[in-house]
Amino acid sequence: MKVAVDAMGGDFAPQVIVEGAVLAAKERRIPVILVGDKDRVTYELSKYGSCIKDLPLSLQHASTVVGMHESPSSALRRKKDSSIRVAFELVKKGEANGVVSAGNSGAAMAVGMTMLKKLKGVDRPALAVSLPTLTGSAIMLDAGGNVDCKPHHLAQFAIMGSVYAINILKKELPRVGLLSNGEEEGKGNELTRETHDALKKSSLNYIGYIEGRDIYSGDVDVVVCDGFVGNVVLKVSEGLIDTLGMMLKREMLSSPLSKLGYYLSKDAFAKIKKRVDYSEYGGAPLLGIDGICIVSHGASSAKAIKNAICLACDYAHQKVNIHLLESFENNKDISKVSKRKRLKVIDTN
Amino acid sequence: MKVAVDAMGGDFAPQVIVEGAVLAAKERRIPVILVGDKDRVTYELSKYGSCIKDLPLSLQHASTVVGMHESPSSALRRKKDSSIRVAFELVKKGEANGVVSAGNSGAAMAVGMTMLKKLKGVDRPALAVSLPTLTGSAIMLDAGGNVDCKPHHLAQFAIMGSVYAINILKKELPRVGLLSNGEEEGKGNELTRETHDALKKSSLNYIGYIEGRDIYSGDVDVVVCDGFVGNVVLKVSEGLIDTLGMMLKREMLSSPLSKLGYYLSKDAFAKIKKRVDYSEYGGAPLLGIDGICIVSHGASSAKAIKNAICLACDYAHQKVNIHLLESFENNKDISKVSKRKRLKVIDTN
Repeated sequence: MKVAVDAMGGDFAPQVIVEGAVLAAKERRIPVILVGDKDRVTYELSKYGSCIKDLPLSLQHASTVVGMHESPSSALRRKKDSSIRVAFELVKKGEANGVVSAGNSGAAMAVGMTMLKKLKGVDRPALAVSLPTLTGSAIMLDAGGNVDCKPHHLAQFAIMGSVYAINILKKELPRVGLLSNGEEEGKGNELTRETHDALKKSSLNYIGYIEGRDIYSGDVDVVVCDGFVGNVVLKVSEGLIDTLGMMLKREMLSSPLSKLGYYLSKDAFAKIKKRVDYSEYGGAPLLGIDGICIVSHGASSAKAIKNAICLACDYAHQKVNIHLLESFENNKDISKVSKRKRLKVIDTN
Repeated sequence: MKVAVDAMGGDFAPQVIVEGAVLAAKERRIPVILVGDKDRVTYELSKYGSCIKDLPLSLQHASTVVGMHESPSSALRRKKDSSIRVAFELVKKGEANGVVSAGNSGAAMAVGMTMLKKLKGVDRPALAVSLPTLTGSAIMLDAGGNVDCKPHHLAQFAIMGSVYAINILKKELPRVGLLSNGEEEGKGNELTRETHDALKKSSLNYIGYIEGRDIYSGDVDVVVCDGFVGNVVLKVSEGLIDTLGMMLKREMLSSPLSKLGYYLSKDAFAKIKKRVDYSEYGGAPLLGIDGICIVSHGASSAKAIKNAICLACDYAHQKVNIHLLESFENNKDISKVSKRKRLKVIDTN
């Protein structure tokens, strides 16, 4: 088991990435290949002196890096020797089992999908993010770039999310919910209505439509939606947390008593902020590719990078991709539902 | 100017509704017709004794009420003498200028659209909700039932939202943003991309794509999206506010110091909660019908009902519907964009 880590990707790369890799190698003895500019990574490693000489760390040079705002397609075409691409090449050649990157997430997904191909049965790989809930956490997918989806895409996201929740999050019978504008049968849009009908026939523990307010309540383990809606959920949440925090601070500092209250409660605020800050989470797996790819937040801390490396390792040990293939086999009819229907329509015309 | 108020709609009807009507009649001298069960409304009014004898309040009997969970279509068909229907009949007959209801919002919108017809140029009326921001408030539309939209629908929402923001929210040059999964040109889905191109050519102050995190920051005045996404935004926000509140309370009560902090800051918390609680807002206008319809939250307070009645009154005085017609005339090409295109496709086939 080896994890290739994009040492150059992320707001605080390579320093924080190298630190995360050192932690993973030290605490969990996970073999890590740091991929990036040889001189800069060597310099970062040199800071640890002899403490790391016995750790399973190695280095693979890559001459360039994909910037945070570069388009994924140009990265694919132009930057053949970028750290993210070299990392995936290691997986392709069998020299690593998975990739962790906190760099340009669109590029990581695009390179991953192009170089590693998709698992059998999967039309569109999906990014599954963790969200904090009142009782623990839930995952939501797609949080990636699948903006215009068909029902069979969402059905596939549901299958992948469920398998991931069972094998990695250790939820025995994960509750899978389809995000909609109401819980009643008549609600939803064209996309969700057809997906809803398909999922009812699946082998999953499908609990039906859920509303936005159920995401954080802990009543659902796997939230299914297209990538457009998933992005809106994530960004609205981020924005609201920031705004509420600022409103509360402003309000609390406006009177002497509540000001005192604010200072007494600072630790509690910090804890909550950490809990809901998704740059603290390990990272989001790109489910459905024939390999392992963990996408971390650009602002990830060293601890978050360490967690992402551990996640890649668990993903391999738990054989998630083999379970995914099994589940797709068991739910063949569902994951293809609208494709068949579409063909029928063409036939009859 | 007269406002017909659905006295039987809402979680605390008729008591809170009557109280709101009394406040509007007293403080703003707005003539209100309370529509509902004669005996129950009379009983509520009797509580005020002689204090209200000079107020411009009247009563219109309606024998039944549409329940909060009844389907709008069955309400339309079966309950011919429901309070919401009788209220709209008063507008149709010219005896009232607008309707305020805190009852079943789907039914209010369906009855309103059926009985009052749509304004010229409008294909789908849209519900515009107010959202608190760091610097004041923004509106988002559609927050109603327009789940599967075409680009010209969203373009029409943008026009209506802008006119409303100018005339009611008194924003001189409201910034109109299209909710998307990123700000860059290449982002969005099929629906937003075509809408984006159309809005760039409009006479509106269109600022382009916005992300979920911009909604609460105060950087946009009018947020445009379809009703599915709008509902997700509202419900995710509601759920997250509740969850954060509970997490924070739990965390703060876990140590003696932060517990003290919690009690010292209670007022500040209450103020923020009130600011973000949208049952406190007056209500959401249904834009695009040939009349006035303000939909209030089921849990509205008397103050919120009063504000909704005042909003209906302002809406009439500011001649919003006339301005809407003008703006549709000025943006003819934009609000029809995808319809034309669709016809062309049919022609060439």
